[in-house]
Amino acid sequence: MSATTLLLVLDLVGIAVFGVSGALAGVDKKLDLFGVLFLSVATALGGGFIRDALIGATPAAALTDGRYLLVPVVVGLIVFYVHPKMARLSRVFLLVDAAGLGLFAVAGARKALDFGVPAVGACGIGLLTAIGGGLLRDVLVREIPTVLHREIYATAGLLAAVIVVVGDKAEFNNVATASVAISVAFGLRVISRWKQWSAPLPRITE
Amino acid sequence: MSATTLLLVLDLVGIAVFGVSGALAGVDKKLDLFGVLFLSVATALGGGFIRDALIGATPAAALTDGRYLLVPVVVGLIVFYVHPKMARLSRVFLLVDAAGLGLFAVAGARKALDFGVPAVGACGIGLLTAIGGGLLRDVLVREIPTVLHREIYATAGLLAAVIVVVGDKAEFNNVATASVAISVAFGLRVISRWKQWSAPLPRITE
Amino acid sequence: MSATTLLLVLDLVGIAVFGVSGALAGVDKKLDLFGVLFLSVATALGGGFIRDALIGATPAAALTDGRYLLVPVVVGLIVFYVHPKMARLSRVFLLVDAAGLGLFAVAGARKALDFGVPAVGACGIGLLTAIGGGLLRDVLVREIPTVLHREIYATAGLLAAVIVVVGDKAEFNNVATASVAISVAFGLRVISRWKQWSAPLPRITE
Repeated sequence: MSATTLLLVLDLVGIAVFGVSGALAGVDKKLDLFGVLFLSVATALGGGFIRDALIGATPAAALTDGRYLLVPVVVGLIVFYVHPKMARLSRVFLLVDAAGLGLFAVAGARKALDFGVPAVGACGIGLLTAIGGGLLRDVLVREIPTVLHREIYATAGLLAAVIVVVGDKAEFNNVATASVAISVAFGLRVISRWKQWSAPLPRITE
Repeated sequence: MSATTLLLVLDLVGIAVFGVSGALAGVDKKLDLFGVLFLSVATALGGGFIRDALIGATPAAALTDGRYLLVPVVVGLIVFYVHPKMARLSRVFLLVDAAGLGLFAVAGARKALDFGVPAVGACGIGLLTAIGGGLLRDVLVREIPTVLHREIYATAGLLAAVIVVVGDKAEFNNVATASVAISVAFGLRVISRWKQWSAPLPRITE
Repeated sequence: MSATTLLLVLDLVGIAVFGVSGALAGVDKKLDLFGVLFLSVATALGGGFIRDALIGATPAAALTDGRYLLVPVVVGLIVFYVHPKMARLSRVFLLVDAAGLGLFAVAGARKALDFGVPAVGACGIGLLTAIGGGLLRDVLVREIPTVLHREIYATAGLLAAVIVVVGDKAEFNNVATASVAISVAFGLRVISRWKQWSAPLPRITE
């Protein structure tokens, strides 16, 4: 399997995972079939859409390859018709979601650099690609986005984006840097969940 | 009346209708005059803005023709000052809104094809153009978007977009295809409302 | 200090002020450290991101200059760790926020004109630049945007944008026009708050 094929496969896996998370949120809010599919697509592709609109990579990537739209529709259908069994897979889901997080952060930062965005901006775009879909999902079902008030999630994505940008400036090998970045985001996310770490909360004083 | 003039008139009618729906939502939430006008504009132009940002048709169309902004402001003012009488027109409103739905889906899919977006992506953009304004409206007044959990609405828009894309691939006449697509969306929307059809809901089991 | 340096300083001051308002909203909703910083950045840069995506000024300006991201992160950290003392500065905050409002409206309208957007569209973009960050902030913390239902805020921003566009058509001096526009927005905002003016509310009748 070539590096390009590998990246495509990983990309589609990330889209599938985020699609599942959107569809589960839709089922949870008792949306109808269309609503569940729309939320699946929005969660899976939303981060990439925001990225492409901001860096000027238009038409957005997900519009030019039918598979990017097909995958979240298919996983959305599966969740809609068999979702009660999905709840039992939450451990698997955590692992795949953590991989998706790292992957989207890396793909986002990489694409921003390729479009001439400087270092700090590329880190921001990497983060936004990774969490944008989840933000959209939560806003559409009227929740304060999970990523803003719980657990170590965005931090792991940001770290992956920073590694990609630093690796790029240091002219390290792209594939090696991406692998390290995805592994770090994945590891930090899984360990923090296991150890129940969380980001600091504001001290409310008088 | 030429085809171009006809399209412009239909476009402005669709904008007016979506503007009314936004303004009514604003009045319902007791927003002030500015809030009502903003919601009117966001609902009328939001779908087109999202479309243009994603396909790279910038500056967005509604920015380059003052009438596109003027129409929702004027209908917003009318709703604000005479809205109690509007409630009595709900049957008319349903019909015009159904026409707007089909029209926006057709215009969105057509523009995406013209910007080189392939078939599946163009269907997605057609749908997003048709429902984007309503999504924005509902998110801004803190409702879970109607289109995600009630009635046959988005399905009608998606069907219109698919007809446009298929007609384009089959090299049918553009105007004829557009007319069929708008009619189908309009018919499906009105009949489904009359028959009280709705999309399937998830089966919540143990 | 040259005009360019002055504009940059004013721009960064506006970003800092909107960053503070986002961070305060995050602390108020008990978001974690990451959530507070994200809300600070989204409020500070959101209006500019929307502007740049719609007029096609990509990569968006805030991505190409690291200071634009750094400023809201730093003010977000300050709010997070010392926020209780901030509440006592509300009068200062009102004044600086009013300056930010005028400044963003002027910068937005100016940039839209430079990208070939006609008069009416440029007024709309000026307004959206000024209020877009606040809209994002309120949607993310699940509030109906303040600007849609309270006080004279958007009106002041719109007025500043209109002054810039009219000044441009009349070929007045850019710097003079901008100064007048910012002063008018600032004055209207501060006076309206002091006098407790507000926009008209809908008359709900039987």
